[in-house]
Amino acid sequence: MAHNNLPKNHASLVVHGEDRSGIVAAVASVLAKHGANIVSLDQHSEDPEGGAFFQRTVMHVPDLTAAMPALTAHLEAVVGDELGLEWRLRDLSTPLRVAILASKSDHCLLDLLWRQRRGELPISVPMVISNHTDVAEDVRFFGIPFFHIPTPAGGDRTEAEAEIVKLLADNTDLVVLARYMQILSGSFLKEVGVPVINIHHSFLPAFIGAGPYKRAKERGVKLIGSTAHYVTEDLDEGPIIEQDVVRVSHEESLAELVRRGADVERQVLARAVLWHCEDRVIRNGNRTIVF
Amino acid sequence: MAHNNLPKNHASLVVHGEDRSGIVAAVASVLAKHGANIVSLDQHSEDPEGGAFFQRTVMHVPDLTAAMPALTAHLEAVVGDELGLEWRLRDLSTPLRVAILASKSDHCLLDLLWRQRRGELPISVPMVISNHTDVAEDVRFFGIPFFHIPTPAGGDRTEAEAEIVKLLADNTDLVVLARYMQILSGSFLKEVGVPVINIHHSFLPAFIGAGPYKRAKERGVKLIGSTAHYVTEDLDEGPIIEQDVVRVSHEESLAELVRRGADVERQVLARAVLWHCEDRVIRNGNRTIVF
Amino acid sequence: MAHNNLPKNHASLVVHGEDRSGIVAAVASVLAKHGANIVSLDQHSEDPEGGAFFQRTVMHVPDLTAAMPALTAHLEAVVGDELGLEWRLRDLSTPLRVAILASKSDHCLLDLLWRQRRGELPISVPMVISNHTDVAEDVRFFGIPFFHIPTPAGGDRTEAEAEIVKLLADNTDLVVLARYMQILSGSFLKEVGVPVINIHHSFLPAFIGAGPYKRAKERGVKLIGSTAHYVTEDLDEGPIIEQDVVRVSHEESLAELVRRGADVERQVLARAVLWHCEDRVIRNGNRTIVF
Amino acid sequence: MAHNNLPKNHASLVVHGEDRSGIVAAVASVLAKHGANIVSLDQHSEDPEGGAFFQRTVMHVPDLTAAMPALTAHLEAVVGDELGLEWRLRDLSTPLRVAILASKSDHCLLDLLWRQRRGELPISVPMVISNHTDVAEDVRFFGIPFFHIPTPAGGDRTEAEAEIVKLLADNTDLVVLARYMQILSGSFLKEVGVPVINIHHSFLPAFIGAGPYKRAKERGVKLIGSTAHYVTEDLDEGPIIEQDVVRVSHEESLAELVRRGADVERQVLARAVLWHCEDRVIRNGNRTIVF
Repeated sequence: MAHNNLPKNHASLVVHGEDRSGIVAAVASVLAKHGANIVSLDQHSEDPEGGAFFQRTVMHVPDLTAAMPALTAHLEAVVGDELGLEWRLRDLSTPLRVAILASKSDHCLLDLLWRQRRGELPISVPMVISNHTDVAEDVRFFGIPFFHIPTPAGGDRTEAEAEIVKLLADNTDLVVLARYMQILSGSFLKEVGVPVINIHHSFLPAFIGAGPYKRAKERGVKLIGSTAHYVTEDLDEGPIIEQDVVRVSHEESLAELVRRGADVERQVLARAVLWHCEDRVIRNGNRTIVF
Repeated sequence: MAHNNLPKNHASLVVHGEDRSGIVAAVASVLAKHGANIVSLDQHSEDPEGGAFFQRTVMHVPDLTAAMPALTAHLEAVVGDELGLEWRLRDLSTPLRVAILASKSDHCLLDLLWRQRRGELPISVPMVISNHTDVAEDVRFFGIPFFHIPTPAGGDRTEAEAEIVKLLADNTDLVVLARYMQILSGSFLKEVGVPVINIHHSFLPAFIGAGPYKRAKERGVKLIGSTAHYVTEDLDEGPIIEQDVVRVSHEESLAELVRRGADVERQVLARAVLWHCEDRVIRNGNRTIVF
Repeated sequence: MAHNNLPKNHASLVVHGEDRSGIVAAVASVLAKHGANIVSLDQHSEDPEGGAFFQRTVMHVPDLTAAMPALTAHLEAVVGDELGLEWRLRDLSTPLRVAILASKSDHCLLDLLWRQRRGELPISVPMVISNHTDVAEDVRFFGIPFFHIPTPAGGDRTEAEAEIVKLLADNTDLVVLARYMQILSGSFLKEVGVPVINIHHSFLPAFIGAGPYKRAKERGVKLIGSTAHYVTEDLDEGPIIEQDVVRVSHEESLAELVRRGADVERQVLARAVLWHCEDRVIRNGNRTIVF
Repeated sequence: MAHNNLPKNHASLVVHGEDRSGIVAAVASVLAKHGANIVSLDQHSEDPEGGAFFQRTVMHVPDLTAAMPALTAHLEAVVGDELGLEWRLRDLSTPLRVAILASKSDHCLLDLLWRQRRGELPISVPMVISNHTDVAEDVRFFGIPFFHIPTPAGGDRTEAEAEIVKLLADNTDLVVLARYMQILSGSFLKEVGVPVINIHHSFLPAFIGAGPYKRAKERGVKLIGSTAHYVTEDLDEGPIIEQDVVRVSHEESLAELVRRGADVERQVLARAVLWHCEDRVIRNGNRTIVF
């Protein structure tokens, strides 16, 4: 698991907060002083005469590890203290630790594991947790620990959630729900302490909740879709990271919608996980900026 | 308005009803006896062992006008009486008369007029009716009668609707709402007596009702869409004919969403009108079969 | 390998040849006499007044196995002898045997194996053959025999091809080149005696031959694509079954084009294999009809 | 021609040249000193450790007209002289003057005129020139001068080109070939002295030259496309600005490909013109950066 594809000596810097004149110059001046060469920069202002400011910069620093402490201190002084903005700096050669929760379906899960193995995703996968055992053998074939934590049908999930939190604690930077068919409680989200990304099998806000393909079939829509979003306490209402659709017709049965949709789900989820892990996604209230 | 592009001596036959073995053979035998050569045939059964049956056939008949009466009688005897199915036969060289209702926006309206003039749509446009006068000059440039029927803001629209019905009576085979920003009453739909197609500026069932682009912006969706559907008494709930989407990002203001969406609207509506006028669309409860 | 998803008692019938009035009726009458209920029917005529005729029918026959011999004989008498058309009847509950040839890349190969296991493709995979060993372990994890047949770099491939033909003989109904980076000789294609489908990593006819992503980058195209086609003696010139594209920008390096393209490749190939195995594809000279 | 939609007090700054550390900081510092607030910034480096640098900045300056001279001088001193980079500054409230050359087809032409009238394109259209008169009436309905300059079939076009150059001289910032079916000479391109954008009716580099839809039909492709590119002396070989495709099938005749393709052409061309006029396109050899 060498992650040879991760860019050496590259860091991403995300800055956001209240817009004012001179932020780009101030940030770029700090970077220049530490020998950073800006490789790409995306900036967005909500309103030309005020409002929120968002910026993501990717930079190359000849000896990043050595430069990191001084760069961090300097950014804190200028961007945090002087300008009063939020900021975060990530060494892009360090993969994020992404734990995956799944149920019986394998399509989203296997796609993530395969992309990770292939070097397409800047992540390591410390574990896969499922309330079923269907995917156990596949997961272990990838050399990844698998934990089976069943959830009582219709019953109290407090204990199961506590066990999951215990396994994840300090071992993960992101939790991905790869068609995990359980609703997580608000207290779980709080205790787990890292972002949680879910893939919902509809084009939100259409068909929130259970059975979206069945309802899509019944409504007679001509496109079906998927949505990757950050999980919040409100079911399927969190900030959307990515969506996509595929054309369907009257010819397709519900089973075929499920199959066609699965292809969209795994792609949308993979893109959302990639973008999150490259620190391209900034939450802006209940929406996202994706640079 | 020569409609030189309409296929001479071509007819479409739509058959639907309860499925049973032998329908295709029976229908094809009737056609063969009248010298019809089947040019394309699409057939769909909801369930392999029963359920609803749908079929659309396009045929070439050497002298269609002469053959029409006998063919019609024969179809009624076999398809209507013997098989107990619904059917309709259309001479595809006769354009449908399509009246257009619009408000201030010109994009859907002009696209339809332009496609009609260009010979892309097998339609004639007997009139355009609007509750505003913004588009009058454009419409008349196309040589099409324009009628201004204002609707009292927030008031009773009964009189306006009655006037529209009077203009449309016997002059139209289809009514198209090309971003007509008025809700039509159930009694209007009944009295007008022909199908009504609307373009809704969202990917239904997401953002039913007013202000879909604004709500799309607020929800932070990554795709915006449009839906063409038959109008029923339930707002934005009628059978969907066509939908499409376009990718948007955080960069786009509400005004830009409106502009980007307009491009999707006019294309989706044009496809729906084309398909309806080629008799490709069969209503199946609140859904459609589009062959 | 239960293929529980394959439709029981369903058959597809493909008919093609010179168009004339009455074919649909004649074929449908034969089917009706054997108790077949037509589930879907697609028909295409190249020219309303003559030219080539193509038809695919899917039917449900209550006891297909028992009905097969009489149905076959009847079709031969009417469709083959009387009408002089080519035809083929396939029991859709019997999976096609699909042998896969691969090299080092795993994306197209694994996607096919995974879809097969999942029940998405109506196929069995009797073997995977590669000129490298990189994918051996993955293939065997799926319980599928793997054969390593190296090809001498720049040397004579006659012997390798002969070995492959020997392995495939009588064991396969279709050969799929899942990014098999070797050009197969005309005599191989002849001896193997079954169709061969290839995935080319460009939007043909753009970038025929080697290095399409590199050439796409150099030309500065804004979309990259993939093409699945039947293999003929002329490199990348065979009948196209399916194509698709994905949007790229100046930001993407060659490595990223390769990664983005791989996603398109595996989807395009999977669709082409599915459609071939459902007998939806009819060759029409160097083009295809896909019903 | 009020162009009320053009952003007041907004300018775009494009900078490109050899990459080195500190460019972003230097440019942003200049802008900050003149009270410019950066509204959006896109930056791209070809290579993290050197190579070419590209940047586009959109800024809001409270009183842009007053600030322009000092800002220009300062940029020339720092960006031009000190850093040795190429740069250009555009007041985005001034529309570009775009002359359109057309032949008989109206779809691309009318789409541009309609978008201009609607306020979607930051352009004025000083004139339309055609070698036919088919579109004259439409053009004049939009209140735009029309000039008919016929070109001798198969003959010498030198005189016609000279006339066109004379009409365009000092009156245009961009020439758009909206399906102008004449090849322009190298000397014309030189004399006209402004960029020329063409729409080619294929997905380049497939089907370079004449008759792309016919050749697409013959090759049996499953998608047809369009390409907008800057015109150079090499036919259809200039830098690509935008491309798109639409799915087609065996059912579609050549006439239908032409019709379906026309929809793609007008959209691709409109996007390319918009992006050029917002100064989003930077030529990089025979490729483009589109921010």
